[in-house]
Amino acid sequence: MNDVADWWQTAIIDMEPGRIELRGTPIQDLIGNLSFAEMIWLMVRGDRPSDAQARLFEAALVSAVDHGPQAPSIAAARMAVTCGLPLNNAMATAVNMLGDIHGGAGEQAVELYHQVKASPLGTEAALDIWTSERGKIIPGFGHRFHSPTDPRAPRLMEMVSEAVANGACEGAFATVGREIEETLARRKGRPIPMNIDGATAVIYAELGFEPPLARGLFCLSRSVGILAHAWEQQQQGGRNKGPTPPKYRWTYTGP
Amino acid sequence: MNDVADWWQTAIIDMEPGRIELRGTPIQDLIGNLSFAEMIWLMVRGDRPSDAQARLFEAALVSAVDHGPQAPSIAAARMAVTCGLPLNNAMATAVNMLGDIHGGAGEQAVELYHQVKASPLGTEAALDIWTSERGKIIPGFGHRFHSPTDPRAPRLMEMVSEAVANGACEGAFATVGREIEETLARRKGRPIPMNIDGATAVIYAELGFEPPLARGLFCLSRSVGILAHAWEQQQQGGRNKGPTPPKYRWTYTGP
Amino acid sequence: MNDVADWWQTAIIDMEPGRIELRGTPIQDLIGNLSFAEMIWLMVRGDRPSDAQARLFEAALVSAVDHGPQAPSIAAARMAVTCGLPLNNAMATAVNMLGDIHGGAGEQAVELYHQVKASPLGTEAALDIWTSERGKIIPGFGHRFHSPTDPRAPRLMEMVSEAVANGACEGAFATVGREIEETLARRKGRPIPMNIDGATAVIYAELGFEPPLARGLFCLSRSVGILAHAWEQQQQGGRNKGPTPPKYRWTYTGP
Amino acid sequence: MNDVADWWQTAIIDMEPGRIELRGTPIQDLIGNLSFAEMIWLMVRGDRPSDAQARLFEAALVSAVDHGPQAPSIAAARMAVTCGLPLNNAMATAVNMLGDIHGGAGEQAVELYHQVKASPLGTEAALDIWTSERGKIIPGFGHRFHSPTDPRAPRLMEMVSEAVANGACEGAFATVGREIEETLARRKGRPIPMNIDGATAVIYAELGFEPPLARGLFCLSRSVGILAHAWEQQQQGGRNKGPTPPKYRWTYTGP
Repeated sequence: MNDVADWWQTAIIDMEPGRIELRGTPIQDLIGNLSFAEMIWLMVRGDRPSDAQARLFEAALVSAVDHGPQAPSIAAARMAVTCGLPLNNAMATAVNMLGDIHGGAGEQAVELYHQVKASPLGTEAALDIWTSERGKIIPGFGHRFHSPTDPRAPRLMEMVSEAVANGACEGAFATVGREIEETLARRKGRPIPMNIDGATAVIYAELGFEPPLARGLFCLSRSVGILAHAWEQQQQGGRNKGPTPPKYRWTYTGP
Repeated sequence: MNDVADWWQTAIIDMEPGRIELRGTPIQDLIGNLSFAEMIWLMVRGDRPSDAQARLFEAALVSAVDHGPQAPSIAAARMAVTCGLPLNNAMATAVNMLGDIHGGAGEQAVELYHQVKASPLGTEAALDIWTSERGKIIPGFGHRFHSPTDPRAPRLMEMVSEAVANGACEGAFATVGREIEETLARRKGRPIPMNIDGATAVIYAELGFEPPLARGLFCLSRSVGILAHAWEQQQQGGRNKGPTPPKYRWTYTGP
Repeated sequence: MNDVADWWQTAIIDMEPGRIELRGTPIQDLIGNLSFAEMIWLMVRGDRPSDAQARLFEAALVSAVDHGPQAPSIAAARMAVTCGLPLNNAMATAVNMLGDIHGGAGEQAVELYHQVKASPLGTEAALDIWTSERGKIIPGFGHRFHSPTDPRAPRLMEMVSEAVANGACEGAFATVGREIEETLARRKGRPIPMNIDGATAVIYAELGFEPPLARGLFCLSRSVGILAHAWEQQQQGGRNKGPTPPKYRWTYTGP
Repeated sequence: MNDVADWWQTAIIDMEPGRIELRGTPIQDLIGNLSFAEMIWLMVRGDRPSDAQARLFEAALVSAVDHGPQAPSIAAARMAVTCGLPLNNAMATAVNMLGDIHGGAGEQAVELYHQVKASPLGTEAALDIWTSERGKIIPGFGHRFHSPTDPRAPRLMEMVSEAVANGACEGAFATVGREIEETLARRKGRPIPMNIDGATAVIYAELGFEPPLARGLFCLSRSVGILAHAWEQQQQGGRNKGPTPPKYRWTYTGP
């Protein structure tokens, strides 16, 4: 019997009939006493944030909820609803799309920050090593749409500065982020400003989240916009809506 | 050109380079000023909750985050990670499972409450109509594991009472829920207490959320536990873990 | 121990180290002796088709593989690839979209045929009952794009006639389908011809497949087009491609 | 208008009302004339296989349809059905799980074969390079369950030999596969035989499929077993079935 019960092991939840404990605390003592953001922190890490940490964490979660129906994930949620899917399946379809290219920049930026911070060679050389190993895209900097500035990044960095002043975090990753930004501007001869992924990555790194969690937390955050758009589409109706109006269809390139 | 831009329409987000407005407010004015729970409310509804409404809403979101690796959704997240999926795909796999039976009870309970509340025939007769149309399962009441009481429900209902006292909601759906509970107990000769789906459905109905959103918000809430378990599994390792230890496999029932 | 091994039960597969039997036959005796279509039949039903049945079954599978990037499922597969998803996740994202509206028409048409066939009141009355219970859309007839005729349906019905002549099936559901077509034409004063879902539903019903399998087999068939488009997109490249060219975005309808 | 129509481009399908052409042939000329396996080949590659190529291709597709409810994908399909998901969503949930570890071995094995074949240093050295770059697992060889021999592999390799004799393929990748098998046996002092992924990878490589298609085609093949198991579970019933019988639950490892 033990080998069966041992097959799945977790330090997150303990349970018997009438008792549910999450990270060691009965669920009824969490309900009403923790904010949703604090509960997220508790669940993924096992400890609780200070008020100042929770405030910074919450800012990151709030910032990334939506980027409109042009984003493949949001578009997928809306299309899925017009195919008759209920909200859980529409949300799953959309979250599934948050892959390396659509949802992975935050994770990659945290990795970049750690690599630059740990390098004894300085930011310039560390960036060169990154580029030689991982390609020319520097995750977290520049934005193909929000030019020159992604409005979310400066606001988030302002909150990081406030958090450093409050002692909620040290600021070492904020410094790394700013150094990368300066280096890129110098190299390109024009600003390549930090975008939302770069800024949330600073926050997640400052707060001690491992790189993969930057992606996981982005998925939680974007799930909010996904739900909002799926629900709006459900109210609008529409059946089997493809990406573009039907008359445009696509271009055939075959023989 | 207009027919293309008109193909997708939304009142949720407006955008141009350097500007993102969500529900009419620039994103930089939301970051740091709204809690994550308030942001969820704003995104799916377009207005903002009062403090007392936000407190009640947050309690519902906190209560449903996890029910352990025995739940198909949590198990799926953990199995997906051992198949090599990154967190976005593992989360999607799990959220996809929150279908009518696993994630739909809250939505069905809100529908039930509305139907009972609107019935001129009283709770008894309204329950009979529900059963004749929708089957013998009364969504939101009884729990196959937490017997006699799901510890989340009484705590949530306590918070509803507090919210009624504060004027955050009217209490009409709480009354309906309690009447259903009493009716079921009388009929069965033993308590069939409200469970978490019944209690969160009271909250979502009190706060004016449409039934499908009870499922959507449950998906958001459970996504937290899904992320926590997926991440824990990623740290544990394990390759290609099936549901049970390999030696048990399954029972072959064919010829 | 038995309760664990009994938790999952199947008549499909039996296995021990070095032995795999599918539906009672060692896998090595199936490889090279069954076509892929025959294997599909064996797996979902447990028996083997005659050659004439296999030929008809294969026609249905071949007919539904693709309907272009305007279909939400195919679009989703291509978008998913530009988000960095590997083929398994891109395929899953697309198949997930084959819900009641996008992938359910075949299943609904099989249900309709059974209901009409079983009705003692005749096709006219049976159609009225269907409409009153299930809404005005008659699954399997008419096509918003292929007007007047979906080229796949006449070819499939030609093969059904051939199969009836060969004794591969009886033709009762083909008759039902044609009666519905005639009734609709008479009512509307113009042809509402059978479409691919109506024609494959005739085939699946003739061959004795239950209604849900019409959807399941459509998912298998469409998975072929999904894979082809996902792979083509992977070769084309493209990063984070939304539904329309970026400059069109969407129409904001809020305040 | 052109930029919209050009947004999605494909050489797979051309269409206008009443006309559907796949890879340049009207769909009605494909129905009844191509087997399902030949249609798969045509869709993903654009050309048609010879009879001998089709026979070998079909063997690979048939061989991988199922490995029982212990496989995470099959388990996920069955669990999904007990959560109330229709077949399309259950199939998607399962196919999603065919990630690098569960569904990627075939793709990796094709990469390995190409790398070994292209290496001027010989199989021994090429294997060392693979291990140093990609880790100690040699994809396609050894099986944790089927010991000593996966019964699918020898049968598939027999068919490759037959195909080489028929001129359907050259046999160069079969030779590479056998050399790897011999090298591993010599190094370990015991047989580490080719498994199903190694054998299907030989076939896909011999037939000229790119590595990612080995995964994509495996997803198509396994979708058959996924559908069969999902449908069987739907007929069995069961609500919210977790991985193990409820009484075993899991082991709590927290404080």
